[in-house]
Amino acid sequence: MGQVVVGVDLGGTNLRTALVSADGDILDKRKEDTRAADGWKKVVARLVDNITRQREIAVQRGLHVMAVGVGAPGVIQIDKGIVVKSPNFPDWNHLPLRDELEKALRIPVSIENDANAAALGEQWRGAGRGIDSMILLTLGTGVGGGIIVNSKIWQGADGMAGEIGHMTLIPDGRPCGCGNTGCLEMYASARGIVQSYREALGMTEATQASEVTSATIYEAARSGDAVALWVMKDMGRLLGIGIANLINIFNPQMIVLGGGVKDAWDLFIGAMHEEIMRRAFQVPAERTKIVPSLLGDDAGMIGAAAGALQKIQPREG
Amino acid sequence: MGQVVVGVDLGGTNLRTALVSADGDILDKRKEDTRAADGWKKVVARLVDNITRQREIAVQRGLHVMAVGVGAPGVIQIDKGIVVKSPNFPDWNHLPLRDELEKALRIPVSIENDANAAALGEQWRGAGRGIDSMILLTLGTGVGGGIIVNSKIWQGADGMAGEIGHMTLIPDGRPCGCGNTGCLEMYASARGIVQSYREALGMTEATQASEVTSATIYEAARSGDAVALWVMKDMGRLLGIGIANLINIFNPQMIVLGGGVKDAWDLFIGAMHEEIMRRAFQVPAERTKIVPSLLGDDAGMIGAAAGALQKIQPREG
Repeated sequence: MGQVVVGVDLGGTNLRTALVSADGDILDKRKEDTRAADGWKKVVARLVDNITRQREIAVQRGLHVMAVGVGAPGVIQIDKGIVVKSPNFPDWNHLPLRDELEKALRIPVSIENDANAAALGEQWRGAGRGIDSMILLTLGTGVGGGIIVNSKIWQGADGMAGEIGHMTLIPDGRPCGCGNTGCLEMYASARGIVQSYREALGMTEATQASEVTSATIYEAARSGDAVALWVMKDMGRLLGIGIANLINIFNPQMIVLGGGVKDAWDLFIGAMHEEIMRRAFQVPAERTKIVPSLLGDDAGMIGAAAGALQKIQPREG
Repeated sequence: MGQVVVGVDLGGTNLRTALVSADGDILDKRKEDTRAADGWKKVVARLVDNITRQREIAVQRGLHVMAVGVGAPGVIQIDKGIVVKSPNFPDWNHLPLRDELEKALRIPVSIENDANAAALGEQWRGAGRGIDSMILLTLGTGVGGGIIVNSKIWQGADGMAGEIGHMTLIPDGRPCGCGNTGCLEMYASARGIVQSYREALGMTEATQASEVTSATIYEAARSGDAVALWVMKDMGRLLGIGIANLINIFNPQMIVLGGGVKDAWDLFIGAMHEEIMRRAFQVPAERTKIVPSLLGDDAGMIGAAAGALQKIQPREG
């Protein structure tokens, strides 16, 4: 009987589950609303329901689900499978997600930070195949990070490494939800881009609140709107400072950019490269391939599945 | 016959060599002036002379030198043993130091960046014993960095990782020799401290050029000089920004601070801790031990010796 795992990408908006083969092929996938506002008990029940549905599908196909891997946003203590804190799930405080799921599902569950899961996915089946040092940045509502060295996620001493979005770029810059000021996330995320546009136009939070989104800014920039173009270049410049730091610190083979802001690739990539060449050492700067993610929304599920497989088939390293 | 290695710390000022046992004990050490201005040929000849003298001492003690490890400042391509560029050795451009030494000595030679060597030394026999994730910062004339993950130096794709001194702290800050502006090195090094003091007093390069050194500034601060005290606090604050970034990115077990500026520990450590707690995530910030180096000037030789031993007795990783 074929052995498979379930990979879960638990986002603030969407809850995605996939049946994934031992080779990383997606055999089935589904998506529904997370409805985080319902509170943690209902979200966990929804997770259990979706995973159970995937197990039923596996049985119908003569397959057996060995384990479940979950990528969840926020600060995760990997070794304990606890979601310490998650901006998208305000009532999740030190939630023992792994234990809750194992109790309900009665198979091994691994929990991973969502950006780490996406990095693993891209390395296994996406832009980073064959690459053993890679940094993934997800430029979405916020900025997540996943670091791969020696072909493995660098988890850190508490499983909390990779918070690249909270690297300080501008010491006295914008206040960030994490308590710091001037974090990369406050400039290179969808939210940061919207804020930059509002600031450039002298708009307050109250004015036209519903009208400006990152998508409308990309559209305006592509129609030649000078302010929107400047905002996207400035975002590229600031992202470039952060990436130059990563290049000088890690000298990685590759940096993968994922998340919704990737849609604006053409609008920021020039300014980003210029800033990197200005700030990073030449040899590592020229060698680092900076590429868009290949797997898109599937990266997290495939990477979470990789985490589940590693849990049941530990590899030497 | 006992097997030993020679560890070399090639600094811009001092050339240190040690006979090191397989357990990391220093059996003999010597120091002489590097005299970098004599040009690379004479410096390499001086290296060969010093290493040869250590081999003679080994023979006298019934020991056999198996290999040589060298820690050298600047940008090193580890795999090729080339010193790409070194601020302390202006005429060293892509110098094949390993090949030059192997040709003269006829035993295996490994070349390592000096800060990486010091990090290895501290992990093997110093502050980082038993620690598997550690970052060493050498706060000297400049700022060097060595990163240990999974108990090994992270070399990067070109052997050029760990240039932590060239993390941008202040995007439009002081111009750095590396071509960037606002590097950590321009604030948290002896040179940076002197520059801060001069700026605070409105001094130009020309005035009292010979009178102000980092040591006189520490002395003034300890005598209650308000400007010197402020300069050291500000240095701590800026170092704290850089370390907070490292904590958020790596979540390491330990950060070791070495180099001459460590002598001013009491003058900057408070401001540094304050800034870290303000900027880094709480769990990793509270867990990271920040400690002074234990081995001092011996760290580089011991670490270089560790590199030589790894070259002749490769360990699984």
